[in-house]
Amino acid sequence: MPILYTLKSEVLEANKSLEKFGLVNFTWGNVSGIDRDEGIIVIKPSGIPYSELKVDQMVVMDLEGNVIEGDYKPSSDTPSHLALYREFKNIGGVCHSHSLWATSFAQAKRGIPVLGTTHSDHFRGEVPCSRPFRDEEITGDYEENTGRLILETFADRDENDIPAVLVAAHGPFTWGKDAMDAVQNARVLEFVAEAAYRTTLLNRDVKQINPLLIEKHFLRKHGKDAYYGQVK
Amino acid sequence: MPILYTLKSEVLEANKSLEKFGLVNFTWGNVSGIDRDEGIIVIKPSGIPYSELKVDQMVVMDLEGNVIEGDYKPSSDTPSHLALYREFKNIGGVCHSHSLWATSFAQAKRGIPVLGTTHSDHFRGEVPCSRPFRDEEITGDYEENTGRLILETFADRDENDIPAVLVAAHGPFTWGKDAMDAVQNARVLEFVAEAAYRTTLLNRDVKQINPLLIEKHFLRKHGKDAYYGQVK
Amino acid sequence: MPILYTLKSEVLEANKSLEKFGLVNFTWGNVSGIDRDEGIIVIKPSGIPYSELKVDQMVVMDLEGNVIEGDYKPSSDTPSHLALYREFKNIGGVCHSHSLWATSFAQAKRGIPVLGTTHSDHFRGEVPCSRPFRDEEITGDYEENTGRLILETFADRDENDIPAVLVAAHGPFTWGKDAMDAVQNARVLEFVAEAAYRTTLLNRDVKQINPLLIEKHFLRKHGKDAYYGQVK
Amino acid sequence: MPILYTLKSEVLEANKSLEKFGLVNFTWGNVSGIDRDEGIIVIKPSGIPYSELKVDQMVVMDLEGNVIEGDYKPSSDTPSHLALYREFKNIGGVCHSHSLWATSFAQAKRGIPVLGTTHSDHFRGEVPCSRPFRDEEITGDYEENTGRLILETFADRDENDIPAVLVAAHGPFTWGKDAMDAVQNARVLEFVAEAAYRTTLLNRDVKQINPLLIEKHFLRKHGKDAYYGQVK
Repeated sequence: MPILYTLKSEVLEANKSLEKFGLVNFTWGNVSGIDRDEGIIVIKPSGIPYSELKVDQMVVMDLEGNVIEGDYKPSSDTPSHLALYREFKNIGGVCHSHSLWATSFAQAKRGIPVLGTTHSDHFRGEVPCSRPFRDEEITGDYEENTGRLILETFADRDENDIPAVLVAAHGPFTWGKDAMDAVQNARVLEFVAEAAYRTTLLNRDVKQINPLLIEKHFLRKHGKDAYYGQVK
Repeated sequence: MPILYTLKSEVLEANKSLEKFGLVNFTWGNVSGIDRDEGIIVIKPSGIPYSELKVDQMVVMDLEGNVIEGDYKPSSDTPSHLALYREFKNIGGVCHSHSLWATSFAQAKRGIPVLGTTHSDHFRGEVPCSRPFRDEEITGDYEENTGRLILETFADRDENDIPAVLVAAHGPFTWGKDAMDAVQNARVLEFVAEAAYRTTLLNRDVKQINPLLIEKHFLRKHGKDAYYGQVK
Repeated sequence: MPILYTLKSEVLEANKSLEKFGLVNFTWGNVSGIDRDEGIIVIKPSGIPYSELKVDQMVVMDLEGNVIEGDYKPSSDTPSHLALYREFKNIGGVCHSHSLWATSFAQAKRGIPVLGTTHSDHFRGEVPCSRPFRDEEITGDYEENTGRLILETFADRDENDIPAVLVAAHGPFTWGKDAMDAVQNARVLEFVAEAAYRTTLLNRDVKQINPLLIEKHFLRKHGKDAYYGQVK
Repeated sequence: MPILYTLKSEVLEANKSLEKFGLVNFTWGNVSGIDRDEGIIVIKPSGIPYSELKVDQMVVMDLEGNVIEGDYKPSSDTPSHLALYREFKNIGGVCHSHSLWATSFAQAKRGIPVLGTTHSDHFRGEVPCSRPFRDEEITGDYEENTGRLILETFADRDENDIPAVLVAAHGPFTWGKDAMDAVQNARVLEFVAEAAYRTTLLNRDVKQINPLLIEKHFLRKHGKDAYYGQVK
């Protein structure tokens, strides 16, 4: 089953990269990837240090969370990942971490506004923060409800334009075309969050930048007439 | 006496790890461990750089502070450690440092409120800050009184739920099931403190999170029905 | 053509140094250099990671932006570099990055005031922040207009005294006698920006330092009677 | 002249350590040492990168600044060092840097108050910030006047109790029993300054700690009955 082995390897590497890129402490983060043709998801096992992770410890499951392969319990955040894969049809990877800067905005219950072009080079608008959980969402199927809360937050947003969200009082989730791309978006988010923090503390009255500037920067990198980078 | 050698080695490694984990500058921190069966405590000698510490320099004493073995003076904070061991019956290790973020809250005379789930994954409520010392507590048996002040601060708290405290104007003490676990709690505290600092500066009106969310996160990791991590 | 090879090598090294000095994340920065006698400019190709950059990927062009040599597309910020070379007759290198501290001031739409002698050792006055872009400047020839906006900002300033500018909502541009000198000014700017940030947060009422002190420090390093450093 | 060689080596090492300990960028700092018996001072040459410094480049002079040995120009801050050596009779080394945290307080024109015991373990009171320079002090013999301004700031303080000062709008000077001890005090000052910054931003109303606590911590490390560390 070489396709599955490739997916497991990619998800393994993406999880290990969390530590290398300074996005996690201890075991506080998890990355998954999906093979849409096979309907198969691979995710990190719960509570295993990144340095000890091995490819055969990765947990394989279907979109409903039924474990297909693997002797380990999947990340406790698995139901949140699954909810995203079911609704965000184009995404191939999901990343969740407690990275410092994004988590600080989540704890402050604030989205990350577009304060500069670095932000709009990657995110076509504010990275939103969810509303707080309702009591019954916590005492109910909490991790599943976390996924639903993210989907509610994106009800009027395009997940392809803004591949990141902050879950209030918790932390960031990001996604992308595959597991490593989800991690890449988490890295960009972290830089953008820190710059927004510094900017806000320097100038409490700062406003979102000109919407034309958001469009200009996003589209020169991601639009159909993008002219950033080399022609592939 | 192989049990004692093991304890001394563990305490040595825990002290050395303070520097590795960025929790100390110079010689500003100390870790101890206890063998409850033998009633024997091992602690760092005073003022020795971590890089030069050797296992036979560790100081061995009983719960009253009588030195049983070792040619070095124990840490000047020893009486504070002993006070915690005498009252907190379940703990096996104590760690004291002047780590930047926890110390900044201690100096600000503020506890670290529960502003996110990262906090409640590890601490079941605010990490409290003690009241200031009274004059006679300073001019009296100061280090012993530091221990008493911590115990007073935990008079209506459970030290098993919140294994950390801030001594006002001084810095953090943490504890755990052994010396290295006390250091681990100091590391988590440092991250939680920095995130709380960033959160507070972003949003001065931020409130403690929903108590149900505190319970949910603490218990999914530490409760009797914990489902985080692998089955041991 | 050994002169050109030397210029390409210098520009390559200057671009790679951005990463080494912590001034960039990902591919978010670019450095160029000019040979004034030949009227030839060398600049980084767009979107290539610094670690993969090779000397024969450098793009060679004239002052109007006509590519003379190279199979790669130049940095998308090239028109901004060219505008600076055309007007700032003494400069030999230009550097653009999204470095954290300078970018935070740019996003806050604030110049970096002279708050200490470290600043005036290198910049003879405030490092200015441009006005925001007008709509038609964004929808028009945006990168060319970025250059023009910088020139407008320096209409009543001497670019030889203050080799740095912040483009509002975007980030810093610096320049110097050659490519590496432009990077050096970016590094100094980053330190000066962080110190100004810390100073401002400590004391919101802080004012620019005594103009005599600005002159004293700038001239003891850069004036005709400079006495800092060794006689060359 | 082996005594002089030893002094030059110590001063060389102390200067190189500035970079290792993160106290300087570029060439922005200098350390000197004195042999009181010989009346000889050794200081860093001006503008030489730390990594290139060699023992025979050190500049040797007397207390009036007459160069006795060395082919290089001494640090431009030399007159400030000399002024301190002439008045502070017990000190054997002086260190000047533009380290971030101490410089930020100097730029904010604020002393560093005693906000915690880490401070009073090393400094027996506020680390003062000088008044601003008067115009004629800048246009006159500036570096000499910097020394005088420090002495004025210590007119009613004991330099043996508080081996550090902030020169307003400039940066810190520290001193100690020899060159490396002056650097050690600069390192402690930097930590204390950062913690004071964090504390101040967390709690704008924070006050200096109990004077009894200052005395307790300073004297248990530095008093005649000090009980910190091992008996020598």
